[in-house]
Amino acid sequence: MSEKHVYLFQEGDASMRDLLGGKGANLAEMSKIGLPVPPGFTVTTATCNAYYANGGRFPEGLMDQVRAAVAKLESDLGKGFGDAANPLLVSVRSGAKFSMPGMMDTILNLGLNENTLVGLIAASGNERFVYDANRRFIMMFSDVVLGVEKKKFERLFDAKKAELGIQQDTDVPAAALREVCHEFLALVLKETGHGFPSDPWKQLELAVEAVFKSWNNDRAIVYRRTEKIPDDIGTAVNIQAMVFGNLGEDCGTGVAFTRDPSTGEKTLYGEYLMNAQGEDVVAGVRTPVPISQLAEQNPAVYQEFVAICDRLELHYKDIQDLEFTIERGRLFMLQCRSGKRTGPAAVRIAVEMVEEGLISKEEALQRVTASHLDQLLHPRVDDVYVSDRGIKPVAKGLAASPGAAVGIAVFDADTAEKLGKIGKKVLLVRDETNPDDVHGMLQAQGILTARGGKTSHAAVVARGFGIPCVAGCEEIHVDEHEKLFKVGDSVVREGELVTINGSTGEVFAQELALIAPDVSGHFGTLMGWCDEFRRLKVRTNADNPRDSRQALDFGAEGIGLCRTEHMFFEPDRLPIVRDMILASDEDEREAALAKLLAVQQADFEGIFQVMDGKPVTIRLIDPPLHEFLPSFDQLLSEVVELRLAAQMTGGTALKRLLEEKEALLKTVEGMREANPMMGLRGVRLSVVFPGIVAMQTRAVMRAACKLVKHGVDVQPEIMIPLVGHVNELRVVQKQLEKVAEETQAEAEVRVPFLFGTMIEIPRAALTADEIAEFAQFFSFGTNDLTQMTFGFSRDDAEGKFLQQYVEDKILPTNPFETIDQRGVGRLMRLAVEEGKKVRSGLKCGICGEHGGDPESIYFCHEIGLDYVSCSPFRVPIARLSAAQAAIRDRVKVTLDK
Amino acid sequence: MSEKHVYLFQEGDASMRDLLGGKGANLAEMSKIGLPVPPGFTVTTATCNAYYANGGRFPEGLMDQVRAAVAKLESDLGKGFGDAANPLLVSVRSGAKFSMPGMMDTILNLGLNENTLVGLIAASGNERFVYDANRRFIMMFSDVVLGVEKKKFERLFDAKKAELGIQQDTDVPAAALREVCHEFLALVLKETGHGFPSDPWKQLELAVEAVFKSWNNDRAIVYRRTEKIPDDIGTAVNIQAMVFGNLGEDCGTGVAFTRDPSTGEKTLYGEYLMNAQGEDVVAGVRTPVPISQLAEQNPAVYQEFVAICDRLELHYKDIQDLEFTIERGRLFMLQCRSGKRTGPAAVRIAVEMVEEGLISKEEALQRVTASHLDQLLHPRVDDVYVSDRGIKPVAKGLAASPGAAVGIAVFDADTAEKLGKIGKKVLLVRDETNPDDVHGMLQAQGILTARGGKTSHAAVVARGFGIPCVAGCEEIHVDEHEKLFKVGDSVVREGELVTINGSTGEVFAQELALIAPDVSGHFGTLMGWCDEFRRLKVRTNADNPRDSRQALDFGAEGIGLCRTEHMFFEPDRLPIVRDMILASDEDEREAALAKLLAVQQADFEGIFQVMDGKPVTIRLIDPPLHEFLPSFDQLLSEVVELRLAAQMTGGTALKRLLEEKEALLKTVEGMREANPMMGLRGVRLSVVFPGIVAMQTRAVMRAACKLVKHGVDVQPEIMIPLVGHVNELRVVQKQLEKVAEETQAEAEVRVPFLFGTMIEIPRAALTADEIAEFAQFFSFGTNDLTQMTFGFSRDDAEGKFLQQYVEDKILPTNPFETIDQRGVGRLMRLAVEEGKKVRSGLKCGICGEHGGDPESIYFCHEIGLDYVSCSPFRVPIARLSAAQAAIRDRVKVTLDK
Repeated sequence: MSEKHVYLFQEGDASMRDLLGGKGANLAEMSKIGLPVPPGFTVTTATCNAYYANGGRFPEGLMDQVRAAVAKLESDLGKGFGDAANPLLVSVRSGAKFSMPGMMDTILNLGLNENTLVGLIAASGNERFVYDANRRFIMMFSDVVLGVEKKKFERLFDAKKAELGIQQDTDVPAAALREVCHEFLALVLKETGHGFPSDPWKQLELAVEAVFKSWNNDRAIVYRRTEKIPDDIGTAVNIQAMVFGNLGEDCGTGVAFTRDPSTGEKTLYGEYLMNAQGEDVVAGVRTPVPISQLAEQNPAVYQEFVAICDRLELHYKDIQDLEFTIERGRLFMLQCRSGKRTGPAAVRIAVEMVEEGLISKEEALQRVTASHLDQLLHPRVDDVYVSDRGIKPVAKGLAASPGAAVGIAVFDADTAEKLGKIGKKVLLVRDETNPDDVHGMLQAQGILTARGGKTSHAAVVARGFGIPCVAGCEEIHVDEHEKLFKVGDSVVREGELVTINGSTGEVFAQELALIAPDVSGHFGTLMGWCDEFRRLKVRTNADNPRDSRQALDFGAEGIGLCRTEHMFFEPDRLPIVRDMILASDEDEREAALAKLLAVQQADFEGIFQVMDGKPVTIRLIDPPLHEFLPSFDQLLSEVVELRLAAQMTGGTALKRLLEEKEALLKTVEGMREANPMMGLRGVRLSVVFPGIVAMQTRAVMRAACKLVKHGVDVQPEIMIPLVGHVNELRVVQKQLEKVAEETQAEAEVRVPFLFGTMIEIPRAALTADEIAEFAQFFSFGTNDLTQMTFGFSRDDAEGKFLQQYVEDKILPTNPFETIDQRGVGRLMRLAVEEGKKVRSGLKCGICGEHGGDPESIYFCHEIGLDYVSCSPFRVPIARLSAAQAAIRDRVKVTLDK
Repeated sequence: MSEKHVYLFQEGDASMRDLLGGKGANLAEMSKIGLPVPPGFTVTTATCNAYYANGGRFPEGLMDQVRAAVAKLESDLGKGFGDAANPLLVSVRSGAKFSMPGMMDTILNLGLNENTLVGLIAASGNERFVYDANRRFIMMFSDVVLGVEKKKFERLFDAKKAELGIQQDTDVPAAALREVCHEFLALVLKETGHGFPSDPWKQLELAVEAVFKSWNNDRAIVYRRTEKIPDDIGTAVNIQAMVFGNLGEDCGTGVAFTRDPSTGEKTLYGEYLMNAQGEDVVAGVRTPVPISQLAEQNPAVYQEFVAICDRLELHYKDIQDLEFTIERGRLFMLQCRSGKRTGPAAVRIAVEMVEEGLISKEEALQRVTASHLDQLLHPRVDDVYVSDRGIKPVAKGLAASPGAAVGIAVFDADTAEKLGKIGKKVLLVRDETNPDDVHGMLQAQGILTARGGKTSHAAVVARGFGIPCVAGCEEIHVDEHEKLFKVGDSVVREGELVTINGSTGEVFAQELALIAPDVSGHFGTLMGWCDEFRRLKVRTNADNPRDSRQALDFGAEGIGLCRTEHMFFEPDRLPIVRDMILASDEDEREAALAKLLAVQQADFEGIFQVMDGKPVTIRLIDPPLHEFLPSFDQLLSEVVELRLAAQMTGGTALKRLLEEKEALLKTVEGMREANPMMGLRGVRLSVVFPGIVAMQTRAVMRAACKLVKHGVDVQPEIMIPLVGHVNELRVVQKQLEKVAEETQAEAEVRVPFLFGTMIEIPRAALTADEIAEFAQFFSFGTNDLTQMTFGFSRDDAEGKFLQQYVEDKILPTNPFETIDQRGVGRLMRLAVEEGKKVRSGLKCGICGEHGGDPESIYFCHEIGLDYVSCSPFRVPIARLSAAQAAIRDRVKVTLDK
């Protein structure tokens, strides 16, 4: 007996997502709990995988099982598939385990041919509807299955409308639609050399295969890569009896969310169109009306729908995204799934559902993702700046995805992608978007469309990815060919700056100042819950009082990385730093160091003051000294030019300048390194030039002593970077401990301080037991640790090959974004284990960029770090991820029992 | 009771080297077996360490024990220490566990003062001898203990000789010597402000302390660093009754080796001087006579000495280095130790002692060191070249240390060190050398002295370090101040090229061609024994047929690393390589690759032919492509110049040239990398530009197929460099296996080939189990693995901080020379273990420079590698080290039982 490839809806349930896909499992579940779902069945995801494994052929017995399932539908509905007298039409839709909206193919009205047309006209009594359905079917099927481009059909249809002087599709009469259908069939014959398949079974077989194939179309692959959906799980195919929203004015179709997916407010949110098929709503061809109007237009159906919404939300305990159709006054549910939501909505829904008693705090915390919080933490338009200057928006559209964005206008997805990838901030402006635009949307700061509603493609995708979006901004006229849009009298061309406010729908033809978000209310509640669950502490990377304050507001529990050299780059200090480096003797060097001591002390005082009561980890100077000097290339050019000039004019002033520049060039050349990342930096600098770190330590301790006297609780943790051998630490730490002692003795006060090290050199991890004998804490510098463990110079790799590595799946992910657990993570795990064996109280943290990445934070939790440290704006995300890690742990413990 | 600090000679034996030092233990042993040794005792090395631990103070009870031991000497000899009637004089000598010749201090004739002088004159009946002894004592003691420079005393003595018109020290009469002694004492008073200590016990106490202190003088520290002698083992102090070789013509002193330490020949080898103290022989002040003359001068003493030599060699089963003194016709042994020997001598002695039945093969192999073999493998003067051109030496001295050397003449140790360290080949030319010169000698290719015998300081040190040396070349007149030497009519100044032949004593005032050594005879026998014991196979790194042939002659069993890109740098290929890189389209690139294919195929054919029957590991292209392009700096300078020129003249030819250069500059700039070592190179290149490695694989396989058809046994092993993630290997290996299959199919022949990878990225080692699923062999690239594990860019580290790290003992050794077992080695061990678990037949080797380093080879044996690969000239050393590792293993197994 062949495997079971097909499940009737009544055979499945919501737990079977792996096999039936999300859509199939939910249709089955809705059937099971007695909701009005048109009957149907699902071809499993396993069948799709078998199709690929089989070299692109159906596994044995598939079509037999499909026929049997269709027979069941026929008997349930009293209709016949291909039966001219009372034809059964079906929809064929993709449906993977994870929602991939619009990425794969769908075919509606399948089963129509010259015979069933006649039967359907008889059965529906509506010739216009039938030819319209046939028109759509031929176009969709030909596009998806036969590879005849949709726009060729649209051109024919538009020509017909023009011929008749008609604007709206709905105004085209039946006879004209019949002619259009004939023209369509002629087009197919011309383009393919074959006729359109009229056998419904052949149609069905080809449609199923087309859905399988659409699993691997380009846009689906791009989407999966972005969403980190595996490539090998396949899609299911859902075949369902058609119901029609376009049979007349007592018909309709719509989409709705059980709560507002943009704000999270508990109110039914959606749109519908009477006398339309679902695609009309989603594609933004006609502008739909709010769901609330249905209460007036058809109170009974509305009440039924509201009851179903309530029931589904209670059933699934999450916001539901629903599709429905009304056929001759009868409501049918075509789809339900967890609703994609904006960050603010995710937070509000999670918090309110806990308050409503629907879900637990643990569940609530698992419903909110890092990217949800990231949206909340998006910048917004500075209202004061705008009102002070009397700036007015040039247009207003729908507030389709919240947050504000500034970028240069770009009018096609490819350009948006290209510029976005090299770091330009772009704003994608389109008439409307479609699934082929996704790669460009992902690289945009924001999206602006002239057409489409809040559930249009642009709006859904933008919300899904947390990209600000203004949709349906009908005041603007987009000319994609000329790369400009017009609004009123003004024209905005490609490359000009635009600001959109996705929270209000406003569009500004200029760059506006954006400000940090104000986070409170539901956000605050959720963050409080995070803190109840998490074990990991969360610190921040901050080099100045301003960032420190911001991080505190976001809940930081200390500074995990304060980079002292950032202070050296300030314009008032750089000359002193250069004097120190270029000093011709010890006296000059000492003088420069003394000046730096004073300014660094002031820096630390500011930070300690803000961080009162919390630990502050200060990393001693790390970059190679040549980073503080002028560029070699620049100097070389200058010297070559000066030499030529001096040869020709021979002035003494010129000669003196040349000599100076030549001397500087020589110095810079002497300090040049083949691979500065692995050269004279970090602790190596401290060994060779001990004066700098002695000065820094003195500055830290003087600041600390001073503030302690003023009653501030100062907890400095001095961190020595780039240690690879315990002896480096032994030598340098000993010298600095002496400085710390001296400074305290001078000040006659004691400060509780620690000395520790970065673990960022593979050898440090491999010898963590030796290093822990001296270091009082470890802080994983996973940026450098990743560089050295992979042998990747990040500067070079990201421009030259890393992107290709990720695209070709040589690497599952960019290891500079998410910790490579197998390699880098193995070193970290080993260092924590062996370090803590030697020094049981060893404090372990992470201060690389990975400290703000959720997957990496889970890993840090798992290997027993004490804290993560990340940029101020990632602190709330880290708190959430830390809580999620702890909750997963509990679940695991429970399962293990 | 205080610890035992003092051992009489009769209380010790040869096994107590740790406690008594080498000299003390051997004096005890000689006493024990009844040889004529002047009585004495040893202050232990532990006492020296206690002295340092005690902050530079004697541990309790030391001087009491010394007094008791002296009392024993007094009673044995019937003399009294400080007794004016019959005074006992003693020598005070250092003696660490490992011989450090001349590095620490010695004081003779201790116990002399105004009273004992008189007694000694009475006892010896030789006033001149006594004042001469006193002169020496005051000078030595003042130099060593009181810090009054020796040369100040020498100046006074020289003035006295000039005043008297006397040349030879021995001609200075007693009265004059007495005056000199008075002048010396006056000098001491003037220089120190204190008088010379006349209390013999005070003298003894100060002398013991001075020896302790000399453990940490600069030259001793330098020597220990070079010889890898630990700093914490301390020195013993040997106090021994004086015997005198300078009491008259029936007295003498000498040094001898039981075999020739230069050639290894079994013949008594040494020199002596009648009526002299030991230092006269060693310091080269008077030129001593060969030991054989003693047979005529004093046959009885000679016979006794020969018998002692035979007995000691049989006792210690090794060549002995002996010091003796004849006092009034009576022979005394003052020292015996294992003799330092040249490489050729070490090999010959080891082989002949096995043949004589004295030692086993295992012992013989452990007697020979890598540096011994290195000397054997030293180049020698090409005799044909010399005789063809009729080149004559300008001078001839003593053949003091074998091998030939070419270098620029340098006249002081500091300059020799400075130039040597930056890679200049220098020849150190000195009148005579002393321990302060060692740092410069170590950096020299060869050493030439005008004075001193074969046992002079220069000769001993040069032989010890395997540096060619011509000593006692009295024809040359060295002017160290003017930095030149004169020989006949010609003058050789600093910086001019000189060749010496340390095997013949010839000196040439020009650069001569040197040729590779001819190794056979004892060397061949020893190498054969190595092969009986070793488990590790030895391969070579070779990129061409010539090196391959050389390595085969030295016993290589295959090629472990053939670097394909070296072939790209050949002048006839570089333009093609540049065409390939700069190709503007695929056709141009393909055309360049096709040209390279032909030349690479020819390269491989040549190598395969030579290596018939042996495996050849070929590494695919590794360096970044920009290495093949002109330098950015050069181009930038040219472009700046051209721009200025074009502005002024405006010629079209100039403009065109400028445009070309600008385009090239732009290309080179685009390929520039911040850290090229970790950028687009190795397998990453193969992922991004698969054409190059496909071409290389095709060239390898075509060459192999062609030769297989001609009956050659070809075993190619294609190696993919810089793999960090298994997927890199998965992708690239699959492509190349396809190329290999195609090529074999075209040629209609099968070749047994392997695909494998370098393990040189930490991540590769950490994920070796995954990688071993694809790789059929691992080759550890320990150069890069060390770079990444330490985060050291070798190019930068060695110039900027690594030397200081080694000098400051932050690192025990340069990790690019000897594998860092704790860090890098841990990764290697883990990779071998985990790789072999997945693929039991996984072949593991090493191809970094460490493959020729003995310590590293021991480690490779220990972790179970299958082979090491090194440069052709290191192959014999690798064979020896591999055998030593295997023998150590046996010993360990025996001990474990």
